[in-house]
Amino acid sequence: MSQASGGPEIEQLIQLLSRLPGLGPRSGRRAVLHLIKKKEQLMIPLAAALDRAVAAVKVCETCGNIDTVSPCTICSDPRRGESGLLIVVEDVADLWALERAGIGAVRYHVLGGVLSPLDGIGPDDLSINQLVGRASDYKEIVIGVNATVEGQTTAHYITDRLADSGIAITRLAHGVPVGGELDYLDEGTLSQALKARTKF
Amino acid sequence: MSQASGGPEIEQLIQLLSRLPGLGPRSGRRAVLHLIKKKEQLMIPLAAALDRAVAAVKVCETCGNIDTVSPCTICSDPRRGESGLLIVVEDVADLWALERAGIGAVRYHVLGGVLSPLDGIGPDDLSINQLVGRASDYKEIVIGVNATVEGQTTAHYITDRLADSGIAITRLAHGVPVGGELDYLDEGTLSQALKARTKF
Repeated sequence: MSQASGGPEIEQLIQLLSRLPGLGPRSGRRAVLHLIKKKEQLMIPLAAALDRAVAAVKVCETCGNIDTVSPCTICSDPRRGESGLLIVVEDVADLWALERAGIGAVRYHVLGGVLSPLDGIGPDDLSINQLVGRASDYKEIVIGVNATVEGQTTAHYITDRLADSGIAITRLAHGVPVGGELDYLDEGTLSQALKARTKF
Repeated sequence: MSQASGGPEIEQLIQLLSRLPGLGPRSGRRAVLHLIKKKEQLMIPLAAALDRAVAAVKVCETCGNIDTVSPCTICSDPRRGESGLLIVVEDVADLWALERAGIGAVRYHVLGGVLSPLDGIGPDDLSINQLVGRASDYKEIVIGVNATVEGQTTAHYITDRLADSGIAITRLAHGVPVGGELDYLDEGTLSQALKARTKF
């Protein structure tokens, strides 16, 4: 087994790549073979890109976004402060998804997860205190955590913490996804979509 | 869109990782976020492992295996020559799969693909001439190409080229996979398994 995959350097690369989400031992091995076959076009550029990213990546000390500067480009863009909107998300991936959707000049706050007493994750493990600290700079806090049980618990906790601040607190609308078919949607979404119906 | 994912260094890393087999734009982004979250445990070791592999990886000039030396550890191990068995495979992944199976001290020959006239892949695009050149050093050539139409065409072509050499040419047995259920197997495999039945 030891030398089965061409030397310790290759074996170690397979093991590390296998730990990426979406890859396992078998696909990690396939990925390494693919890299080696495309050494000039893919492997060397990827090695260089990783080295550059390792050196450049920073977590924004204000909002928790990942960028190459801190505060991040979103937090240091004054135009984004003018909207007065602060969207609270669980994860950087959610922030990026909203940015890709082109929702406009807003700011974000990345919680770094959701409250989950069973996993021992309390308010101090998330950036909730930092959120309370910066909330007063904004007119409206939009809760954009996922619509899971833990997400909703977290949303309620944040709402409680900000209750006395006088800042408007809203949440993203539930409803039928654009392009989605009713037949494939769960009952919770459908009943929320009916309750929140709007004029045609 | 341009700054949606935190700076050009991160965007470029996402694009390169998305080109690995098994990953796409979405899972590439998830992989990069995972790397950044586990910077010390995963991202930095992966960057170092890639750099080391880029410097170390060599394609064996004898058999086509990927290793850190050429001739590879398999080709330069005299014990593996004594068996007189040379297994012909399509790809390095097949070689690694046979090695993981611990099939014993044999040598290999990696074709680098299969004959595919429709894709413009002829005998000179594979390492068939090299195979004919080294075949006389072995007692038996075991054809281990995949049981696809192109694989079988390639197997027949190799058999023709080696017909006058007097070297025994065999192929891997077809049959029921160990642990496999008959109900899930195709008719071709089942009829081959019946034809090649052995004494209990």
